Amino acid sequence: MAATPAPLERFLGLWAEVSDLGTAAQALSWDQETQMPPKGHGARAEVLSSLAGLRHAKLSSAELHDAVEACAELADPDGVLAAQLREARRVLARVQRVPEELARAKAKAVSVGHEAWKAARQERDFSLFAHQLGHLVQLSREEAQAIAGPGGKPYDALLDLYEPGSREETLVPLFQELQSSLSAWVQAVRESGVRIDEGPLQGSFPVATQLEFARSMATRIGFDFEAGRLDRAAHPFCSGFAPTDVRLTWRATEEDLRPCLFGILHEAGHGLYEQGLPPEWARSPIGGAVSLGVHESQSRLWENLVGRSRAFWEWALPGLQQHFPSLRGTSLEEFWPPLHTVKPSLIRVEADQGTYDLHVIVRFDLERALFAGDLDVQDLPEAWDQAYERALGLRADHVGDGVLQDIHWSMAGFGYFPTYTLGNLIAAQLFAQVERDLGELAPSFRRGDFAPLLEWLRDRIHRHGSRFPASELVERATGRPLGPEDYLALRARDVEEVYGVTL
Amino acid sequence: MAATPAPLERFLGLWAEVSDLGTAAQALSWDQETQMPPKGHGARAEVLSSLAGLRHAKLSSAELHDAVEACAELADPDGVLAAQLREARRVLARVQRVPEELARAKAKAVSVGHEAWKAARQERDFSLFAHQLGHLVQLSREEAQAIAGPGGKPYDALLDLYEPGSREETLVPLFQELQSSLSAWVQAVRESGVRIDEGPLQGSFPVATQLEFARSMATRIGFDFEAGRLDRAAHPFCSGFAPTDVRLTWRATEEDLRPCLFGILHEAGHGLYEQGLPPEWARSPIGGAVSLGVHESQSRLWENLVGRSRAFWEWALPGLQQHFPSLRGTSLEEFWPPLHTVKPSLIRVEADQGTYDLHVIVRFDLERALFAGDLDVQDLPEAWDQAYERALGLRADHVGDGVLQDIHWSMAGFGYFPTYTLGNLIAAQLFAQVERDLGELAPSFRRGDFAPLLEWLRDRIHRHGSRFPASELVERATGRPLGPEDYLALRARDVEEVYGVTL
Repeated sequence: MAATPAPLERFLGLWAEVSDLGTAAQALSWDQETQMPPKGHGARAEVLSSLAGLRHAKLSSAELHDAVEACAELADPDGVLAAQLREARRVLARVQRVPEELARAKAKAVSVGHEAWKAARQERDFSLFAHQLGHLVQLSREEAQAIAGPGGKPYDALLDLYEPGSREETLVPLFQELQSSLSAWVQAVRESGVRIDEGPLQGSFPVATQLEFARSMATRIGFDFEAGRLDRAAHPFCSGFAPTDVRLTWRATEEDLRPCLFGILHEAGHGLYEQGLPPEWARSPIGGAVSLGVHESQSRLWENLVGRSRAFWEWALPGLQQHFPSLRGTSLEEFWPPLHTVKPSLIRVEADQGTYDLHVIVRFDLERALFAGDLDVQDLPEAWDQAYERALGLRADHVGDGVLQDIHWSMAGFGYFPTYTLGNLIAAQLFAQVERDLGELAPSFRRGDFAPLLEWLRDRIHRHGSRFPASELVERATGRPLGPEDYLALRARDVEEVYGVTL
Repeated sequence: MAATPAPLERFLGLWAEVSDLGTAAQALSWDQETQMPPKGHGARAEVLSSLAGLRHAKLSSAELHDAVEACAELADPDGVLAAQLREARRVLARVQRVPEELARAKAKAVSVGHEAWKAARQERDFSLFAHQLGHLVQLSREEAQAIAGPGGKPYDALLDLYEPGSREETLVPLFQELQSSLSAWVQAVRESGVRIDEGPLQGSFPVATQLEFARSMATRIGFDFEAGRLDRAAHPFCSGFAPTDVRLTWRATEEDLRPCLFGILHEAGHGLYEQGLPPEWARSPIGGAVSLGVHESQSRLWENLVGRSRAFWEWALPGLQQHFPSLRGTSLEEFWPPLHTVKPSLIRVEADQGTYDLHVIVRFDLERALFAGDLDVQDLPEAWDQAYERALGLRADHVGDGVLQDIHWSMAGFGYFPTYTLGNLIAAQLFAQVERDLGELAPSFRRGDFAPLLEWLRDRIHRHGSRFPASELVERATGRPLGPEDYLALRARDVEEVYGVTL
C-alpha cells in the first residue's frame, strides 16, 4: 500500500476530528430523546451548544481550509479524492458564511425549542411553542440568507442542506404533478364507494409483543443488532454514529399494528443504509449518507415496497399469527388490502401511501410561505388547518394532531419535509431497476429471503457513501435521471388492485 | 446584580466549553458501558480520543492561560474567584506538562484496554489484557513523570489526580496503622469462633424485585430520579453530567441480596453528592466534586453508616419482607448481623466492612511497586495472589476473581484505589460530627426519615463543590483534620457488637 501523502493525511485527520464532534453531538441528542431524565435538558442544551460551536470553529478555521486546498493538486478529477474535496468544499462554503455566534444560538434554540414543542404538544397549546418557533424561523432565515448570499434564495439554501442540489423551482412543478395525480386518485377512490375493512389491523395488540415481532422482522431484512439498538422515543428516528453503531427508535399504539411494525421497518431501512456505509471512508467527507432523499428512499423501500407487498405477507403472516392468536382466522386477502388504504387522515407519520405525499406538500407550501415572509408564525395553526381542509378535507380537533404533530420544526428542520417525497420517488425508481436487473423479487420475499435486494442496494447505493452527488448516484444505479413515473405507476397499480378502480 | 467583569466572563466562558467537552466524553463513556452495541467500540474509541485531544488542546491553549491570569488582580484572596483560579491553575499545570499526543494516545489506550479487560475477564485469561495493561501503565507512567517533573514522584502525581494534595509518604503510615488494627480484628474474630449466619441474605431473590426495592430505597434517601437514571452495567458506577442529570448503574446476583441493594445505596450516595453540587458554579472550575475521597465518603456514608445501621433496618425490613415473602419469618436480630460480617473474601466490591480496606491496601501496594519499577505487568497475577494470601489468607481460583476483578486499571485509574479508604475515614468523621450537631440519627432512620442527614451533608459538603481543598472542607465540616479515629471506633463497635468480642 502506498503511503498517504502528508497533505491528504492532514486534511483527513482534521476532518475526522470535525466528524467526531458531530458524532458526539448526535449521540447526546439520541440520549436526550431516549434516555435523559427530564431535568437534564438545560445542561444538555449547553453541551450541545458548545459542541456545535466548536465544530463550527473547526470548520471555519483557516487550518482546515488550507488543508483542503493543499490537496487540490493531488486529485484526479474522477477519483475519490476529488469527491472528498467536492464534499468538503460544499460543507465549508456553507459554514464559512454562517457566523459562529449564529451557529451557537441556533443549536441552543433547537435544544430549548424542542423541549417547548414537547410541552406544547402534550398540552395541545401552540402558544407554549410559538415564541420558540418564531425564534427558530428567524435564526434559520438569518442562516439561510447568509448562505444564499445577497442574490440567492434562502429557502433553496435550506433545501440544499438536506438534499444537496435541489431547488424550490424544480420541486414546485414536480410536487404539483404529484399532487394533481394523487388528489385525482383520492377522489376516484372516494367515488368508487369501496371501503377497505381495517379490522384485521386494529384491535388489542400488546405493545411488548408488537415490539418483539417487529424486531424479528428488522433482523430478518438484515439489520444487525450487534451493531445497533432499538429504543422507545416520542417520535421514531434513526441515528447512525458509525456503520457499527446505528440507533433506531420506535413508538407503538396497542390499538393498531401499523405504527410499531411499519415504523420499525422504516427505521430499519434507514439503519441498513447506515450499516452499509463504506467503513474505509468513515469520518471523511464522503463517508456519510449522500442526501436525505436517498436516505428516505431506503426506509420507504423497505417499509412500503417490501413490507407492504403481498409476497412479504405470504411469508410473514403465519409468524404474525403466532404472535397474535386473535389474527389466526385472518386470511391474506383480508390482511393485505388495509395496508394499502387511500384514506385522508390527520397524522403524517401514520398516513397511508395514497395520501402521504399530500401531507408533505402541505408542509412544503407552509414552509415556503414562512420563509418568503408571507406567513407569520402566529398565523400558522390556522394556515395549517386551512391547508389540511383543502388537501385532505380534514381539520384537526387540536394542535397536537395539527401543526404540532411533527418534531422537525422544533429542531429547525425547515426544508426537510420534501425529502420524504423525493424518497418515495427514488425508492420506486430503484425498485423498478432492481427487478429489471434481478427479475421479480416476489418469489424471494415469499421465502423470507431479502438478501438479494439488500445486496443490490449495498452495491448500488450504500457502499458509495457520498462518492457521487445524489442525482448522479440515482442515475448510475438506475440508468436514468430521477422522475415521477415509477412512483406514480406503483401507486396507481396498488390503488387499482385494492379498490378495483381504473385510473 | 453587578455586571460580570469582561476578563472573568472570558475565563468562565472558555472554562465552560472545556467542561462541556468533558461532559460529552463522560456521557459517551456512560453510553459505552450501558447502551452501546458490541460492534460500536472501535468507532467510540475514535470519538473519545478526539474529544480528549480537543479538551487537552483547549486546556493547554495560551488563550485560556491568559484568560485565567487576566483575572488574577480581580481576586479577593478569600473569595470565590480566588478558589476558581486555584482550581483552574491546578488543572492547567497538570495539562500543560502533558503533550497532546500522549493525552490522545492514553484516551485511545483506555478505550481499547477497557475492551481487552472485559474480554480477558470473561475468558479468565490475563494474557488477553497483559499487553494493553502494560501499555496503560507505560503511558500513565510517562504522564505522571511529565507532571511530577524531574525531581518529583510519579505516583504522587497519580494520587493527586483523584485526591488533590495527597501523597504516598502520608498514606503509607496511615494505611499501615489501619492494616494493623483491621488485621488484628480479623484475627480476633477468627479466634472467637463465632460464625454469623448469612442465610437471611442468601437464597433466591428475583433480580427485578431486588432492583425495584433498591430503587425505592434510593428514592427514599433522596435521590431524584427526575434528575437521574439507574441502568445495568458490568461494574457499578455513578456519572454526573450535571446536578440535574446523574446516572447510576447497578449489577445483581439472584443468590444474594447485598450486591444489588448496597451497590445501589452506594451509587445513590455518590449521586446525592452530584445532585447537590452548586448549580451556580456549574461548568466552572469549582463546580465539581472536590476529590474522590470526599466523593467516596458520601457513597460509603449512605451505604454503610445509614444502609447497614440497625435503625435503618428497623424501618426497612418490613418493606423488604413485602417484596420477598421468603424473608417474612426473619427477625431483625437475624437479619442485621450478616450485614456486618468480618470474613476474608476475594472480591473487593463485595467485601464486608471488616476486610474492605485490606483489599484496597493490596492494590495500593501493587500499584506502588508497578510504578516504582519493582514489579512487571507480566508478574502481576502471581504478585496479586501472593498479596491476597498474606492479607486475607485466600487465593483466587482464576484471574477473573483475582487481578482482573476491577475495572480501574483498564481505564488507567492508577492511584484511584486509596480514595476508597480515605472515603471510609471521611465518612466516619462526618457521621460523628453530624451526630454531635444534630444528636443521634437513629430515631429519624427508624422513621425512614433521612432528610436531616441529607440537609447537613448538602450544607457542609455538597453545596461547596470545590470551593475549598478537600482537607480544608473536611476540617471546616468537622472542626478537625482528617484522622483514623472515628473510623476505627465505628469498626470496633460493630465488630464487638456483632461478634461479642472485646477489642
